[in-house]
Amino acid sequence: MIYSGLPVESELCKNISTSPLLFPSMREFQLIEIASRIFKANRSDVLVGAGDDDCAVVRLGSENVVLTADNLHEKADFPPGITPEEIGHLSLAVNLSDLAGSGAEPRYFIYTITLREGIDDEFYKRILAGMKKLADQYDVAVVGGDTDFGDELSIAGFAVGVAKRFVTQKGALPGEKICLTGTLGKAQLSLEQLFSGVRREELAYPESLFTPEPRVKEGVELAEHVSAMTDISDSLAISLNLIAKKSGVGMVIYEEMLSLDHLTKFVDDEKAIELYLYAGGDYELVYTAEECSHGFVIGEVVKGEGVYLETEDGLREIEFRGYSHM
Amino acid sequence: MIYSGLPVESELCKNISTSPLLFPSMREFQLIEIASRIFKANRSDVLVGAGDDDCAVVRLGSENVVLTADNLHEKADFPPGITPEEIGHLSLAVNLSDLAGSGAEPRYFIYTITLREGIDDEFYKRILAGMKKLADQYDVAVVGGDTDFGDELSIAGFAVGVAKRFVTQKGALPGEKICLTGTLGKAQLSLEQLFSGVRREELAYPESLFTPEPRVKEGVELAEHVSAMTDISDSLAISLNLIAKKSGVGMVIYEEMLSLDHLTKFVDDEKAIELYLYAGGDYELVYTAEECSHGFVIGEVVKGEGVYLETEDGLREIEFRGYSHM
Repeated sequence: MIYSGLPVESELCKNISTSPLLFPSMREFQLIEIASRIFKANRSDVLVGAGDDDCAVVRLGSENVVLTADNLHEKADFPPGITPEEIGHLSLAVNLSDLAGSGAEPRYFIYTITLREGIDDEFYKRILAGMKKLADQYDVAVVGGDTDFGDELSIAGFAVGVAKRFVTQKGALPGEKICLTGTLGKAQLSLEQLFSGVRREELAYPESLFTPEPRVKEGVELAEHVSAMTDISDSLAISLNLIAKKSGVGMVIYEEMLSLDHLTKFVDDEKAIELYLYAGGDYELVYTAEECSHGFVIGEVVKGEGVYLETEDGLREIEFRGYSHM
Repeated sequence: MIYSGLPVESELCKNISTSPLLFPSMREFQLIEIASRIFKANRSDVLVGAGDDDCAVVRLGSENVVLTADNLHEKADFPPGITPEEIGHLSLAVNLSDLAGSGAEPRYFIYTITLREGIDDEFYKRILAGMKKLADQYDVAVVGGDTDFGDELSIAGFAVGVAKRFVTQKGALPGEKICLTGTLGKAQLSLEQLFSGVRREELAYPESLFTPEPRVKEGVELAEHVSAMTDISDSLAISLNLIAKKSGVGMVIYEEMLSLDHLTKFVDDEKAIELYLYAGGDYELVYTAEECSHGFVIGEVVKGEGVYLETEDGLREIEFRGYSHM
């Protein structure tokens, strides 16, 4: 999600599919392609390398060690009104979510924080306290950090996990079910409410926006049997397209299987489906498997290519787009 | 080193001990103290934790895994005229230097890059190419990266190494020699020349400033027998004070043992000793051991506390200060 320079939305139900917010995310994927070509490794200890997936997986001794990095910026990633503790939570949560998407149990976290003028020691302590609270919850040791000074508050996080069996976006098989660990669209709905003038305490799903919970336990359990998995940081549409492309399969999502009640309480049906498919920030996991052991079914892996939504009116393409770049 | 807002120095030999550049570095150490208290871990798998040293060391399977993170910013850390390839080199080099200071063999590297407006794909590719070249030199696999967009170009690097025997800043023993792997002051001398109007091709030591070479091989070999070690990113003074404090010892550096010829060719004696003791950016290693197997002796570990320079006129305190915050 990009918050900076965002005009305050006066109309909650505005169609956001044409929003300029979409572009950074797309350019990011082009840049990942470039990096992937430059850093292509041919080493037996690099099981998943640059650009292959959300996380890298390397073989260290007898372990599959899973590595990931995510960078959050004040203007782009921190919603107005977020507390320092929530900033700390968010910066760890996005990394734990990446590890969860690979099926890794998180172990260690290192950060670099860039402080800007106006951030005092108390604010800094509260960021770290928020990070520590979430770290303790998942038994993650925060083992180091580099702090420096710049124009904008930003936190780059690096997480290290271990996976008995790791899962990537590659591996989905025709005939499998497509499953989600939870409902989507809540973070973006709340963000748009915030920009439309709704007070924080009256937002629909403030915890989805300010303190999303990474699906750590679910990711580790799912890794035992699923064939492809990823966390949904950008959008379901992007996650599905990545899995489909890397696995060499097609996908069909059934509109009738999407429960939209949590959104249609606040917005119309068209907007609800837009949020569900194209909004980010909820940090659920999407996976393909013979059976959905966690969460619920939303569709099916098919032969061919492309990702489609089956509606009453027929098939509609689910495009590769989203709002978040985290 | 802080380059932003730096007035161009019109006088090369100006005494820089009163420079405002010193303050960020000092605040950084205070913030490390805060983080260290918050993240104090009591886990058997965390051998060196937050704030204990430049790197963290964790036990993963049967390996000592060494983790470090460093963040570089355009305004603070990239000298004017630096090429994109050199930016890539520098962002990896500072992390490899941290690993070398712990005696770790580097294995993997992940980065986050924040791009600002005006940086095109070509510039980005050249940054990565510089990173790749150095990575290949030390057999480091660059296994991932996160790219996003902000106000300032910055690169946060995260390096993973493995150490048979790791070394920290704690462990120096009275009677041991204090040794350096190479001479100091070259990077800062060149920087000040640059700000005084000297053209890049006429700088005294441009490679020290733009493409410092991390002491990777030396670090791994030294770890076999030294008792305390660290890389010198900030200044020799800061490194010595950290080793002395953490080891509970005092230190005496003998001025007559410091070879200053490489500096006195360009500046007077007083400025030369200032650069040698208090400037950063050369990325040599300083260590304490019974014998200096790499480089040369500069002093001795003694009982007591504090760090002193022995000159013709007697002992003079070497204060805890430097210019760099990398």
